Amino acid sequence: MSGLRLERILEGAVTTTPGFEAASVACGIRSTGAPDLALVFSRRPCVGAALFTTNAFKAAPVLYDRAVLARNANAFHGVVINAGCANACTGAQGLRDSQATAAAAGAALGVSGESILVMSTGVIGVHLPMDKVLSGVKQAASSLDPGIEAGHATARAIMTTDTRPKESAVRVLTPGAAYTIAGMAKGAGMIHPNMATMLCVLTTDARLTPDVAHAALTQATEVSLNAVTVDGDMSTNDTVLLLANGQADVPLMDAASGSRYAAFVEGLMAVATDLAKELARDGEGATRLVEVTVRGARSRAEAKQAAKSVANSLLVKTAIYGQDANWGRIACAVGYSGIEVDPERVNIWLGDLELFRLGAPYDVNEARASEILAQKEIAITVDLGAGDAQATVWTCDLSHGYVDINAHYRT
Amino acid sequence: MSGLRLERILEGAVTTTPGFEAASVACGIRSTGAPDLALVFSRRPCVGAALFTTNAFKAAPVLYDRAVLARNANAFHGVVINAGCANACTGAQGLRDSQATAAAAGAALGVSGESILVMSTGVIGVHLPMDKVLSGVKQAASSLDPGIEAGHATARAIMTTDTRPKESAVRVLTPGAAYTIAGMAKGAGMIHPNMATMLCVLTTDARLTPDVAHAALTQATEVSLNAVTVDGDMSTNDTVLLLANGQADVPLMDAASGSRYAAFVEGLMAVATDLAKELARDGEGATRLVEVTVRGARSRAEAKQAAKSVANSLLVKTAIYGQDANWGRIACAVGYSGIEVDPERVNIWLGDLELFRLGAPYDVNEARASEILAQKEIAITVDLGAGDAQATVWTCDLSHGYVDINAHYRT
Repeated sequence: MSGLRLERILEGAVTTTPGFEAASVACGIRSTGAPDLALVFSRRPCVGAALFTTNAFKAAPVLYDRAVLARNANAFHGVVINAGCANACTGAQGLRDSQATAAAAGAALGVSGESILVMSTGVIGVHLPMDKVLSGVKQAASSLDPGIEAGHATARAIMTTDTRPKESAVRVLTPGAAYTIAGMAKGAGMIHPNMATMLCVLTTDARLTPDVAHAALTQATEVSLNAVTVDGDMSTNDTVLLLANGQADVPLMDAASGSRYAAFVEGLMAVATDLAKELARDGEGATRLVEVTVRGARSRAEAKQAAKSVANSLLVKTAIYGQDANWGRIACAVGYSGIEVDPERVNIWLGDLELFRLGAPYDVNEARASEILAQKEIAITVDLGAGDAQATVWTCDLSHGYVDINAHYRT
Repeated sequence: MSGLRLERILEGAVTTTPGFEAASVACGIRSTGAPDLALVFSRRPCVGAALFTTNAFKAAPVLYDRAVLARNANAFHGVVINAGCANACTGAQGLRDSQATAAAAGAALGVSGESILVMSTGVIGVHLPMDKVLSGVKQAASSLDPGIEAGHATARAIMTTDTRPKESAVRVLTPGAAYTIAGMAKGAGMIHPNMATMLCVLTTDARLTPDVAHAALTQATEVSLNAVTVDGDMSTNDTVLLLANGQADVPLMDAASGSRYAAFVEGLMAVATDLAKELARDGEGATRLVEVTVRGARSRAEAKQAAKSVANSLLVKTAIYGQDANWGRIACAVGYSGIEVDPERVNIWLGDLELFRLGAPYDVNEARASEILAQKEIAITVDLGAGDAQATVWTCDLSHGYVDINAHYRT
C-alpha cells in the first residue's frame, strides 16, 4: 500500500497505546496467590467492538458484554478481566456477578458501570467469589498505571495454563497520520478457530466509528485469531475486544473501505497474527509451532477447512511431537475434511520436502524430514490442485504435557 | 419381537458361522515376525455387502473392493486381510497390488480373483511388499481351517495397535429357523464415526439378497460401528464387510422389511455393537470405556452430533483419564457441537449423578463423582430438553499411552 509503514514496537503492551492505563492484582480467586484480576482503562471514552465465542453455552461475561455493546458501542472506558474462574454455566447468578463486577469498577473509576466490559477465564461451572472480585476491582482501580510494566503485568495476570504472556504492538504510519495498535491475549487450551480462541484485548488510539471498528476487527480476526487451534475445543468464554480511544491526531475513519481503512486492518492483522502464533506456540504441552497452509483450493473457506482438519488431527500432532514424518496422516486428514478432494491432484510438502505428488509418494527423504522435524517451527503445505485460493492456520503438536495439564486441571 | 431369541455364543469367532474357514500366517510385512496376513473363506459363494470410509483418500483395497462389489455382489468366496501396511496413498501401483493379492488368492483356492475381497491396515503411503504378500497368500490358502482356534488366530493377525482381538457371535432363533452371525474387528487409533472406524468382517449363514444384506448392514452399522470414536481421525481404509453364504436351512430374505428382516438386523446389531464397544474399550492408551448418551433431542442425527462432540472433546477425555469430574467441559462440547441448544433446558449426568440442571450447577457431589470416575465404564448422559430423540456413542479416555503410541508409530 503506497505510503503505509508498519513499525513493530519491541516489548509492546496494551499500555503502549497512548491514553491506556492498566493494573493487576492478586485478589485470591486463584489459590496460588498469583495475580488474577486485571483492569485496562482509558479515561477518554472508547469505541468498542468485540467478537465472541459461537458456543451455545456462552459464559456470563460474554452475555453481559454482548448486551452492553448492543446498547452503545461508543462509550467504553475499559475492561475487567479475571483468571481462575470462567463464570460459565453459572445461570442467572453468573450474569448478576458479571454485572456487579462492571458496576463496582465503574463506581471506583467514576464512570458508568455500563462503560466497563468484563472477561473471565478459568474453570467452568463455578461461581465467582464476589467478595474477592469486588475488593480486587477496587484495588485495581486505585493502582492504574500508564507505564509499560503495568501493561506487561496485566498480560501475565490473565494467564491460566499459558507459560508466558502474549503481547504485540505496532505503530501505523500513513501519509499525514500515525497511531498505535497494541494487544495482549491469553489461552493455551480449549482453543479452536471460529472465534473461540481465547481472551484478547486490543487497544488503539486510532479514530474509528463503531461500524468501522467492528468491520476491521472481523476482517483481521478471520486470518489470525480465528486461524489458530490447539485442541479443537471451542470455549464458552472466548472474546476478542478492540478499544479505540481516538486520542491520536488523525482524521476519523468512518467507512470500511479505502486506503486508510486498509492500513488500519493491516496493522490490526499484524498484531492479531503475532498473538495468534504465540497462542499456538504456547499451546498446552506444545513443543512445536506448526503452520499449515492449504493452497490450490477452490475457495478460501475450503482451504481453511482442510487446513483446520490437518491442524486438528491428533495423529498429525502426535507424529510431529514424535518427530515422525508420517505424512500419510496429513493426506488422511485432508481426505476427511469434508471438502471435495481429488487425490490425484494433491501435493504435500513438509518444509521444502515434497513427500507426496499427484496422489503417490514422491521425495520421501527420511533424513531430510527428520532435520525439518527437529526445528521448533514446522511448515506443512498442501496443494489441492483445484483452484487459486489458500489459507494458513497455526497449531502445535500434541504431547504428554497436554495430557498432564488437562487430566488434572481443577486439582 | 415375538418369537425372536438371540443367543450369545461365548468365545465366538468368524469361523463360528458354518461354512467359513480361516487361516493366518506371518509373511514378514511386520518386522516383528507376528502374524500379519489373514484369510477368511467360504467354499459356498456368498452374498457380499460392504460399507467404506468416506475419506477422499480411499486406500487401494477400498477402491478395489468397491469396484468388484459394484460388478457382482453375489459370488464372493472370501477376503484377504493384511496388517502392517495400509496400501493407502499409493496411487496406481497400490491398486495393482490389491488386485494381484486377490488374484493370487483366487488362483490358490480355485475360484475367480474377483470373488476375493481385500483389506489392509497399517502405515499409510508405503507400498505392499508383494513378494511377501503373495507367498503369504499361498501359505494361508493351503492352511484353511474351519475350527474356532483358526478364527481366533485370524482376529489376532489383523491387529495393529490393538491390545486384544475383538470378536463376537450370536445365534438368531426365529420361529422355524436358526442361523449364526459372527464377526471380528480391529482398530484402536484413527477411529472416528461415519464409516471410518476400522476393519470388520461379519459372517453369517443366513440367506439374503445383496440388497437386503446392504440395507441390514447399513442399519446395524449406524448405531454400532459408526457410533464409536477414539481420536476423531477418519481412516483411509475402514471397511465393514458382511459375507452371507446362505448355508442355513432358512427361507431367503428378499425384502428389507418384516419380522424376519428385523430379527436379522437385531442379530447383526448385537454383534456389531459388541465389536464397537470393544474398539472403544481398547482405544489407543485407553483406561476407560465411555458411553455418551444424548437424549431429549429434536432428531437422532442431532443427538448423535452432540454425543460425538462430547466423545471427541480432548478436554472431556483427558478429564476422564485424570478422574476429574470437570463436567463444564461436557457442557462446553455440547455447546460447540453445531446443533441448536438452549442451555437453560439442559441437564447433565455423570453416571447417576445430576451435575447440571436447567443451565446451572446442581448436585455437584465431588466424592460421588470420584467414585463413578474410578470405574472402568463411565456413562455420560445429556438431556437437551428439546425433543424425544436420542443416540449413544462410545469412546475412551485420552491418556499418555495415546501420545506414546502415536508419536512413534512408524518407528
